[in-house]
Amino acid sequence: VSTSYVRQADEASKRQTKLFSQLVSNRKLPTDGWNEQVIESFLLELSQLDSNNFLDNCGVGEREGRVYSKLVQRRNFGLHHGIGRSGDVSADQPKAIGSSIIAKLANILVADAMKISGLQSIDSTTTLLLPLCTGMSLCSVFNALRAHQREEQNAKEDERQNTIVWTRLDQKTCIKSILASGYDVCVVDPILEKDELVTNLQALEKELSAEENENTKKIACVVSSTSCFAPRASDDVEAIAKLCQKYNVAHVINNAYGVQSRKLCVKIEAAMRKGRVDCVVQSLDKNFLVPVGGAIVCASKGNGYLVDKVRKLYPGRASISSTLDVLITLLEMGKTGYERLLDERETNYEKLKMALERTASKYGERVLETPNNPISLGVTLTSSRNDLVTKFGSMLFTRRVSGARTVPMQETKKIGDVELRGFGASFSTYPTAYFTAAAAIGMREKEIESFELQLEKTFKDFVKLT
Amino acid sequence: VSTSYVRQADEASKRQTKLFSQLVSNRKLPTDGWNEQVIESFLLELSQLDSNNFLDNCGVGEREGRVYSKLVQRRNFGLHHGIGRSGDVSADQPKAIGSSIIAKLANILVADAMKISGLQSIDSTTTLLLPLCTGMSLCSVFNALRAHQREEQNAKEDERQNTIVWTRLDQKTCIKSILASGYDVCVVDPILEKDELVTNLQALEKELSAEENENTKKIACVVSSTSCFAPRASDDVEAIAKLCQKYNVAHVINNAYGVQSRKLCVKIEAAMRKGRVDCVVQSLDKNFLVPVGGAIVCASKGNGYLVDKVRKLYPGRASISSTLDVLITLLEMGKTGYERLLDERETNYEKLKMALERTASKYGERVLETPNNPISLGVTLTSSRNDLVTKFGSMLFTRRVSGARTVPMQETKKIGDVELRGFGASFSTYPTAYFTAAAAIGMREKEIESFELQLEKTFKDFVKLT
Amino acid sequence: VSTSYVRQADEASKRQTKLFSQLVSNRKLPTDGWNEQVIESFLLELSQLDSNNFLDNCGVGEREGRVYSKLVQRRNFGLHHGIGRSGDVSADQPKAIGSSIIAKLANILVADAMKISGLQSIDSTTTLLLPLCTGMSLCSVFNALRAHQREEQNAKEDERQNTIVWTRLDQKTCIKSILASGYDVCVVDPILEKDELVTNLQALEKELSAEENENTKKIACVVSSTSCFAPRASDDVEAIAKLCQKYNVAHVINNAYGVQSRKLCVKIEAAMRKGRVDCVVQSLDKNFLVPVGGAIVCASKGNGYLVDKVRKLYPGRASISSTLDVLITLLEMGKTGYERLLDERETNYEKLKMALERTASKYGERVLETPNNPISLGVTLTSSRNDLVTKFGSMLFTRRVSGARTVPMQETKKIGDVELRGFGASFSTYPTAYFTAAAAIGMREKEIESFELQLEKTFKDFVKLT
Amino acid sequence: VSTSYVRQADEASKRQTKLFSQLVSNRKLPTDGWNEQVIESFLLELSQLDSNNFLDNCGVGEREGRVYSKLVQRRNFGLHHGIGRSGDVSADQPKAIGSSIIAKLANILVADAMKISGLQSIDSTTTLLLPLCTGMSLCSVFNALRAHQREEQNAKEDERQNTIVWTRLDQKTCIKSILASGYDVCVVDPILEKDELVTNLQALEKELSAEENENTKKIACVVSSTSCFAPRASDDVEAIAKLCQKYNVAHVINNAYGVQSRKLCVKIEAAMRKGRVDCVVQSLDKNFLVPVGGAIVCASKGNGYLVDKVRKLYPGRASISSTLDVLITLLEMGKTGYERLLDERETNYEKLKMALERTASKYGERVLETPNNPISLGVTLTSSRNDLVTKFGSMLFTRRVSGARTVPMQETKKIGDVELRGFGASFSTYPTAYFTAAAAIGMREKEIESFELQLEKTFKDFVKLT
Repeated sequence: VSTSYVRQADEASKRQTKLFSQLVSNRKLPTDGWNEQVIESFLLELSQLDSNNFLDNCGVGEREGRVYSKLVQRRNFGLHHGIGRSGDVSADQPKAIGSSIIAKLANILVADAMKISGLQSIDSTTTLLLPLCTGMSLCSVFNALRAHQREEQNAKEDERQNTIVWTRLDQKTCIKSILASGYDVCVVDPILEKDELVTNLQALEKELSAEENENTKKIACVVSSTSCFAPRASDDVEAIAKLCQKYNVAHVINNAYGVQSRKLCVKIEAAMRKGRVDCVVQSLDKNFLVPVGGAIVCASKGNGYLVDKVRKLYPGRASISSTLDVLITLLEMGKTGYERLLDERETNYEKLKMALERTASKYGERVLETPNNPISLGVTLTSSRNDLVTKFGSMLFTRRVSGARTVPMQETKKIGDVELRGFGASFSTYPTAYFTAAAAIGMREKEIESFELQLEKTFKDFVKLT
Repeated sequence: VSTSYVRQADEASKRQTKLFSQLVSNRKLPTDGWNEQVIESFLLELSQLDSNNFLDNCGVGEREGRVYSKLVQRRNFGLHHGIGRSGDVSADQPKAIGSSIIAKLANILVADAMKISGLQSIDSTTTLLLPLCTGMSLCSVFNALRAHQREEQNAKEDERQNTIVWTRLDQKTCIKSILASGYDVCVVDPILEKDELVTNLQALEKELSAEENENTKKIACVVSSTSCFAPRASDDVEAIAKLCQKYNVAHVINNAYGVQSRKLCVKIEAAMRKGRVDCVVQSLDKNFLVPVGGAIVCASKGNGYLVDKVRKLYPGRASISSTLDVLITLLEMGKTGYERLLDERETNYEKLKMALERTASKYGERVLETPNNPISLGVTLTSSRNDLVTKFGSMLFTRRVSGARTVPMQETKKIGDVELRGFGASFSTYPTAYFTAAAAIGMREKEIESFELQLEKTFKDFVKLT
Repeated sequence: VSTSYVRQADEASKRQTKLFSQLVSNRKLPTDGWNEQVIESFLLELSQLDSNNFLDNCGVGEREGRVYSKLVQRRNFGLHHGIGRSGDVSADQPKAIGSSIIAKLANILVADAMKISGLQSIDSTTTLLLPLCTGMSLCSVFNALRAHQREEQNAKEDERQNTIVWTRLDQKTCIKSILASGYDVCVVDPILEKDELVTNLQALEKELSAEENENTKKIACVVSSTSCFAPRASDDVEAIAKLCQKYNVAHVINNAYGVQSRKLCVKIEAAMRKGRVDCVVQSLDKNFLVPVGGAIVCASKGNGYLVDKVRKLYPGRASISSTLDVLITLLEMGKTGYERLLDERETNYEKLKMALERTASKYGERVLETPNNPISLGVTLTSSRNDLVTKFGSMLFTRRVSGARTVPMQETKKIGDVELRGFGASFSTYPTAYFTAAAAIGMREKEIESFELQLEKTFKDFVKLT
Repeated sequence: VSTSYVRQADEASKRQTKLFSQLVSNRKLPTDGWNEQVIESFLLELSQLDSNNFLDNCGVGEREGRVYSKLVQRRNFGLHHGIGRSGDVSADQPKAIGSSIIAKLANILVADAMKISGLQSIDSTTTLLLPLCTGMSLCSVFNALRAHQREEQNAKEDERQNTIVWTRLDQKTCIKSILASGYDVCVVDPILEKDELVTNLQALEKELSAEENENTKKIACVVSSTSCFAPRASDDVEAIAKLCQKYNVAHVINNAYGVQSRKLCVKIEAAMRKGRVDCVVQSLDKNFLVPVGGAIVCASKGNGYLVDKVRKLYPGRASISSTLDVLITLLEMGKTGYERLLDERETNYEKLKMALERTASKYGERVLETPNNPISLGVTLTSSRNDLVTKFGSMLFTRRVSGARTVPMQETKKIGDVELRGFGASFSTYPTAYFTAAAAIGMREKEIESFELQLEKTFKDFVKLT
């Protein structure tokens, strides 16, 4: 073979090696995504650094990364040791150097992606990828907070913080995570401004202030939320952060699927800069287009005490699965791909809104005005009998529309011993039934078109029904 | 094609369909394992029942199982919705019928495998597969226990159970899980009987009895352990269970890697029958040869209150990854394969013991007599300087022996605010340094041979060193 | 789970089954492509019909589809028996019903795709997918032709047809396939019309006509070509077909990569309708975006005698690999995807032409006018020293441009005992050196842009050199 | 992480690199097989050397290795350019250095494996892996022989060799490959010695000798066979080779599935050393446990003229698929694994024989004595009506026994214009009907046991029938 051809092949091989080393040294998303084969090759190379893949390794421990099924081995790229050690979920594993590098890289790339979304103040050292969903991650944060506060204050039994103040959001996960970690909940309902449900800052301050509440010192933290179903708006996290600073109370932001919205990230960034934010928790799957399974806990640089505590309190090791999924995904997306997805989502939001307006107006309904919710949209179902509202959702599902959420008026639900009136709406007396639809990351334009079509048909059938 | 051939092919196809339906109706491990292709075909078939895989589905929710990377999609068989719902980690997901069936099946097969190991009293309704490792699972159990006890007793603040009694086992995970869930720890050290460290039942009873301890009612539960490093023996779980029954205290058994030993399972079975056992927790990966990531929480049939509470308290959904790994593995093993692995492990234990005896005796050392530890074996390192003991381990690792654990004398470690003297040995004054080796499930005979060879060489080099 | 959700899942499952049965009954490309998982599931289902995948099959033959490596098994979806039987490469295999169905389906879909390209007269019964490349397939056609002609004419030894008339095309494969099958070659050079090299019909007729050539009866067939490098044009296959009809000589069209061009297919269709075409041979990989390995032999409906003979003369069975690749690909493309690719290719041809014109004009060169070559384009390299022309190609390759072909003037090459002067240009005295570039199916617009950039740079460097 | 651990990982990585370079420099099967992941990593690394996988490659040729389907890409590891060039099927491809290396390696490892089987005289330079099955490969050999003989002798038309002498073997492939390449067949029937059908050397010599046959110079070659169904024995290839040398006639051995038998290889080796063997052809799939699709053409070192001619006459390139399959398989087997398979096959032959004897004797039948067929065994079906004999085979197939072959008496079949009486038995008047079973490589002991069981049941049913 002529040498010029061999030289080209050789350079191709070097370009790949360079790609790998650049990734490790740049600590950023690659500008352009990698192709699948390069990614697989990268993972297999790292996998060979784990002792279970050493040729002729002989294992005499109680866990040696042995796997029975080749199919299982393959889907895990031979990375069987999980991540973390019993002392720290971010610690390197001596037996599994490859897995350790993968965990570190995933953390770094996720932190970079979150910066791109607008969380400028965070940093890979204050970002922790947890192989737990948002709910369990919040639970870990609350457990860490308790451990921290006990150590800090060497508190006497009866002075221990036992209550978490929560701005109401009618989705079970967050409130359950508070209860699961052994705290009592103090619910702060939103207030209605036109169509929109916004943070009741006055009520919140009342809970925090010493005058009104003798038990102030028993409040462990405030939990606010950004991403949520319309007509609830994102909490005014900046104002909450300022209140928390004023009253010296910890502040945890539940940013479940907010990383996909630059608007929401800007709000959180402002809260971190101008007030107190101890920790922000977000879903991995909802924001980064991976299967359900992980979450991210982060804080602004220099303020990572709670993230560190979560890391260190975590007992034992954890699955590498969601770490692997997000690493592969971010490498394949690259910066360009991720930014394109963020852009497309914003465009889709506008398109979805117009589609909803077009259809709603034909049937005497309207889109709720919720300027502070950049992801979810609500449409009134005023003309329907309240008991038929949920039927509307199942009719949509039958037409292969998944994820629309119908909310009738005045349902009540009890979670633990907390009773929530008007459940679903996050408000006890929302004036209308409605359904919601979201412009989430990764939605394709085609889906909006097909949704409009099916919605139209559903309305038509629904009208006959009522 | 002659009809007889087509008939054969047709019957082959029916045999497969029958295989699938038999599995669902028998609710047991198949006698013989399935081959890889049948398993993949089964998973792909189920995967098509999840809405994200519906042809022409149009998603308008905030989580629609969208996945960016084909590579990620493939390794997850298109099962992106995870398992569970915000209300219950075992609940079916309307949007993901396939994933829901997979989760149920995995649970059923794991329960069957555990019965085969000897836990006859359990049942798939009292068995819960958690996508969390042992430590986090214990944490979930303790959280559930707290929630249960509060509900039960409607306890006043100052009467709440705040302490967990723990029979000492020097591995960080268990004690960290107690601390992480906000409990205080009361350590019960073992006693030394010949070489072996066994449960100090007297000391334990002292903690439980009203006379000696005014705070009895503040004890949330006792945590005992079965699988552990020699020379610590399995706890006498039967005796502990009887004490717990007598003093009406909850009892959680940490059976981390004990399912692989029929001996340990027999002990637990006896404990469940003759005394009080509220819950048994075990690792998925250490017992079933899958990657790190899951655990099993179980209880005897009719006594599943705590398992149920764990299920219901779990906030949000969870990764399907370890569920998938164990389902694939058990289908591939079948009952026959699983029993063979259990048999081989027992044979390997004897072989490993003999190999250690042969080598140890050449260098003036001996195997510690630990008849109540059926998995791990210890070998004295008496002739060595205490400060060189850990060196022995790293010399073995250099010779590609992973997992041997060296324990020097009189180290001390502080976990949270608990100080453990003689750390590593689970005993403050164990009379000798030693190293351990385990005959874990899946070990191959070849590994024992190669270990003996490398151990011999290591001893030779080590002797020169000291 | 609510029944409406289960019903949806159930319907999803039925939709898939319906998809499969529709494919089999429609015998056409699906309108929209299938996704990867549906395809895999389909293949695994069929694979279970092969006896090597029967549960508990016991094989006592000399070939039982046993495969050592799981990796190999997986990449072949367990389809190990290949296609065909010793009697006929299209015959069903009793032991491998699944593989047989796959082979049939691939054949049907390929025939449909070729019709979409414009070969309306063909039919799946006269279309044969061969697991051989174009060259070997031509060889098989010539072998079949010989067998047929011998049977037909019961020819005496000295009257046997021993010569194939070939319209010159300077690419080794076709001429080698003639020589390999034991025929002598009679070369008919093209004539130059402006820039373009077109079929010399007069010369061809001279060879065929009895008056000028006493050995007419010794001509086995004429081989013409459609797709080729510019400045050679597609042969005037319609005129050739008419001549072949007139002189009663068989006519084989080498349509190597012509299926991707509707223009070329229209020409062949006209030739089949208005004259004599015994068989058309085309590459699988060059037209359908699969790896190298297969070819298609076809004829118009009702005229499949030669295709049948190829099928029946094929000794033994053959690899299923390229059949599998093209089946997967066509299912994934669907009709819509395939048509889009055909459209894009035509657009790309225009873009490529404009890009070449822009760059060539800057350096005093020009694009050759070759209106009858809808795929390949030539650009003069007049200003260069003839001995540096090939350097131009390697300079492009160094800039990661692959596939450009540089042709210096007056090279000579001997293939077998046939001497070709002016080799590369398909003409002994083409008046200029040149290079070619092709707008092949699957080319992305980005590649054209990047090519223009690199070409510009290469010209700049090349000018300095000369 | 402690440096000793990192050092271990680093050394693991180096060991892998070393493994790769050792393979390339040793040019032998690795002693121990590689695991799947190492193999995948190796292939992906090589794949990156092909231009279609270069990052930012821009292709302007007519074939650029573009592939539409990710699924197709993955199953081919991105190796899309096939093997060979239009000039030579073994030539390196400038655009595909990785594929070229893979093709070379596969060739080298296959040659090494064949040496291990006993073909000591061959060499990787005289061994050619063809992506064609045995039949098409024989066809290529005959085509190459014609081309060679024409060049050599510059023969006049009427002196051309037009006949191939073939020792009869009733399997269609070989005779069809002779006919397909345009030769006439001269059949030499075997003679019956006790139960066994052995080479009729006298008849063969008669054909070759000038005295008896005036057309001697028209014989192109003799084709003998080794592996075959009992009661036909392996040809006495050594004696045939001596005759061929004596009469200066080429000799091609059809060793279809003989590489798996050391006994057959020893015979061929002797033939190559003591007489004339121009070429030996064998199946890839039947000998190396890969899917149907390839064959090996080889000759003794220094005598590779015909192999070379095959290589060079091959028109165009070819699929890499079977090359890839055998490379993966041999790397996974290693020398140890391959030798174990050879040993097991020999043991299985004895077991199968005993199983057949046990069962046959119960039903008044017996195993045919065929000491010169080390793979296949025949069992008489004397007591049956001749017209029911084939029924016996389909009864076995219904019991999931595949591959048993039943041969009734006195069938006649015409292939081309050759009539074969007593078809199936390779003999016009074999005295009994029978069925055959083979101990082929890769057979598992379990299959023999299950076969015995099913055979017993089939006999029982069959007896009732007759």
